[in-house]
Amino acid sequence: MSSFEQLRQTLHDIGVLKSARAILAWDQETYMPRGGAELRANQLALLSGIIHRRVADPALGEMLSATAAKANGDPDVAAIVRESTRDHERATKVPAELVEERARVTTLARGHWAEARTENDFAKFLPWLEQVVGVSRRIAEARGYDESPYDALLDDYEAGATASQLNEIFPPLREALTDLLGRILDSGVDVDDSCLRRTYAPDLQAQFSRMVAQKIGFDFQRGRLDLTVHPFCSGTGPGDVRITTRYDKNAFDDGLFSVLHETGHGMYEQGLDPRHFGTPLGESCSLGIHESQSRMWENLVARSRGFWKHFYPKAQNLFPHGLGDTSLDEFHRAINRVSPSLIRVDADEVTYNLHVFLRFELEQAMLTGELDCKDLPEAWAQKFETAFRIRPPSDTKGCLQDIHWSAGLYGYFPTYTLGNVYAAQLFDKAEEDLGELEPQFQRGDFRPLKDWLQKNIHREGRRYAPRDLIKKVTGKEPSQEPLIRRLTEKYGAVYGL
Amino acid sequence: MSSFEQLRQTLHDIGVLKSARAILAWDQETYMPRGGAELRANQLALLSGIIHRRVADPALGEMLSATAAKANGDPDVAAIVRESTRDHERATKVPAELVEERARVTTLARGHWAEARTENDFAKFLPWLEQVVGVSRRIAEARGYDESPYDALLDDYEAGATASQLNEIFPPLREALTDLLGRILDSGVDVDDSCLRRTYAPDLQAQFSRMVAQKIGFDFQRGRLDLTVHPFCSGTGPGDVRITTRYDKNAFDDGLFSVLHETGHGMYEQGLDPRHFGTPLGESCSLGIHESQSRMWENLVARSRGFWKHFYPKAQNLFPHGLGDTSLDEFHRAINRVSPSLIRVDADEVTYNLHVFLRFELEQAMLTGELDCKDLPEAWAQKFETAFRIRPPSDTKGCLQDIHWSAGLYGYFPTYTLGNVYAAQLFDKAEEDLGELEPQFQRGDFRPLKDWLQKNIHREGRRYAPRDLIKKVTGKEPSQEPLIRRLTEKYGAVYGL
Repeated sequence: MSSFEQLRQTLHDIGVLKSARAILAWDQETYMPRGGAELRANQLALLSGIIHRRVADPALGEMLSATAAKANGDPDVAAIVRESTRDHERATKVPAELVEERARVTTLARGHWAEARTENDFAKFLPWLEQVVGVSRRIAEARGYDESPYDALLDDYEAGATASQLNEIFPPLREALTDLLGRILDSGVDVDDSCLRRTYAPDLQAQFSRMVAQKIGFDFQRGRLDLTVHPFCSGTGPGDVRITTRYDKNAFDDGLFSVLHETGHGMYEQGLDPRHFGTPLGESCSLGIHESQSRMWENLVARSRGFWKHFYPKAQNLFPHGLGDTSLDEFHRAINRVSPSLIRVDADEVTYNLHVFLRFELEQAMLTGELDCKDLPEAWAQKFETAFRIRPPSDTKGCLQDIHWSAGLYGYFPTYTLGNVYAAQLFDKAEEDLGELEPQFQRGDFRPLKDWLQKNIHREGRRYAPRDLIKKVTGKEPSQEPLIRRLTEKYGAVYGL
Repeated sequence: MSSFEQLRQTLHDIGVLKSARAILAWDQETYMPRGGAELRANQLALLSGIIHRRVADPALGEMLSATAAKANGDPDVAAIVRESTRDHERATKVPAELVEERARVTTLARGHWAEARTENDFAKFLPWLEQVVGVSRRIAEARGYDESPYDALLDDYEAGATASQLNEIFPPLREALTDLLGRILDSGVDVDDSCLRRTYAPDLQAQFSRMVAQKIGFDFQRGRLDLTVHPFCSGTGPGDVRITTRYDKNAFDDGLFSVLHETGHGMYEQGLDPRHFGTPLGESCSLGIHESQSRMWENLVARSRGFWKHFYPKAQNLFPHGLGDTSLDEFHRAINRVSPSLIRVDADEVTYNLHVFLRFELEQAMLTGELDCKDLPEAWAQKFETAFRIRPPSDTKGCLQDIHWSAGLYGYFPTYTLGNVYAAQLFDKAEEDLGELEPQFQRGDFRPLKDWLQKNIHREGRRYAPRDLIKKVTGKEPSQEPLIRRLTEKYGAVYGL
């Protein structure tokens, strides 16, 4: 076997183990009986240990060096070696004790966070938050960084991205969104979305969502759609991609747009190149790029008029009592209502990123020590009031609302906004290549966009770093401008600004 | 850490990996999309390889020797060392490549078998059957045996059992059953079971089956019941036990008795000692003992009059159109109708074992090479006609009906009959200890039997070899006599012989 064949086989096996772990994690959220929790934690920990040891194995390091020496300019081999070396080095830089400590601390912290959130008692979470921040800081130190410890963590989710880079995009985006929100609030227009709050039988919602997901391109021969408390997408390989959602009988949009969001993630996973399974060329590029796929289908596609010109008659047919007396125009305005709210996951397109900026600032400040963890609730409340003109009535609806910090996911939040930014840029470029897309959606023709994304994004895997992928596909640096333009145009129309 | 603690931890980790594999295998039959098949085969093969290497690891051998030297007569330690040494030695005899090859071949063979069965095309399955027989033979040779390669495989399912031992029990049982069947057929009595063939809504069947399973003792906090083409039970640990069934809207008994059967298996798994998880003391004793639990609940409990005195009013209530005009007596006779039929899994208590004997003979002949795989359909048809006075009209209803041979499960079938034999012996002993059981069932009181089984069978794990467990609990060698007596009495009454 050549060193490259050996490397491929080694990476393939690691991919297979990761995919097995993904199924176990999916089952934990979907079908596992309560009594299985302890054993499942053991299964996941043991498999994670096996995977970590294989990624950090010095023998893999040697295979990588040997393959690099013989790459002969083959771009596939070069990309696989470059990215696998990155993974290998990242795995070896952090001592096993620190990895284990993080696993232990975050497992316990999540339980305390859940309790603190339920009881609106930040003090209960504080000592755990301090521990998670502490261990995250030590991991950042072990990894090393140029400017900020934050960058060492952000790099887990968005390879090569730095806080400085984000600070070129986020402030002008914030300014534009704050301005847009101000004009919307000052317009005096209040969009009526009561039609979405009528009664919608969950089984019919499931039927409709499934039909829509299939129509836009999710392949149910290579995937599933199940119910969970929190929607997610779990890709084990391009042949087995599982998305989940929930249905609220009094919210037509909640379940459906979750399905559309997860379908975007799912089509990315289904679009990965199966020939490269296990290698970086068969893996998604970054969380930001992943989120660009989900947000594009959820917002740019499925909140457009063209999309609903196609699907609305079907929806009215299935839900005559809910939607029969609502016009397409009214419905389209309802699903695009802007309203500042306390909870990020319920936010509209305009305010969503403002929620992210708040977290991005606070988590940097906690990590660098600029913000003492004990002052988080007050800092949150002040920043929130400035951005949204509302003060959170509780920490449960404030700094305790998200699971991320208890789980040690520092540097994760900004990828949500990067996803929105990338989505708008990619959509512009897709329209440049394919012509105007809304008329295609109106005809029920989603194939051109899906194929374009598969060719330009999905099939590239991790061949390029996320910024470079955006540059390669669009010919431009990542920029907030397309997103600002789209939101300004769309909401200008909805609110008659 | 003492050598015993080290051993315990090592065995625990192997148990955790096996339980992860069990979930993946369960998911393969329940929820995996079609496109996941190839990746799943890889996952199962890789995990099986990892498990095999851990069981065969020389370091485990050393731990076992070190622990044995310090056991100091502790019976738990002695049993764990004895059985783990057996597992270790069996594993070291088979190279990991052969184990992985079997996993790969059988995963693929199962797909081809399913297709061949659907299309009644034995030729499609033949090359795969040959491969599975080939790899099974090589495993038997690697294991070694005294009398027959068959014994080396049988030993996987029924530790210490040999074809010779079975040949002491099976022939007299066959003679008695053939005689009983002849008297039933000659009696001229034809039991009317048409009430079972009316229309029974699958969702109501599911509701009823679930209620019955719960009532007799299956714990749904530590288990699930799902739908599959073929019913099975998958125990990953006492906290997570999954049984499956199917419902035929024109067969009231099919789904229900499958659930009762699998519930028997499931309660065994739920009854294992969680403190011994991963060690042989936390594992089921053998397939024969496992089957004794399923057949006891399915037949000795749930086909008794006492059982239905309790449940029949509830069934009539739920299915007034199906059962409203059928008396308890008529119903009880219907669910105990004897009729030679083509399909093993549909067989009644009297003919069931005759199906097993046929397979037991054929699989021995295939393994030893006495029977060429290509001649299987004809050999099957001839033997079947001799035993049942019917010739199968197709291979689908003949030698292609069971999954076992495609899955490499040679030596598995006889454990079904052993299960029936053990069940009758254990039931006799339980009645000796607990008093007559039918009156207890009539009161809805299943707890005494369940607790008795848990104490005497489940909690013992693999402390004793299956034969020794039967001897220890009943005071007698395994024998066909109690089964013959029970069947003769019961069917004598049903058919007025």
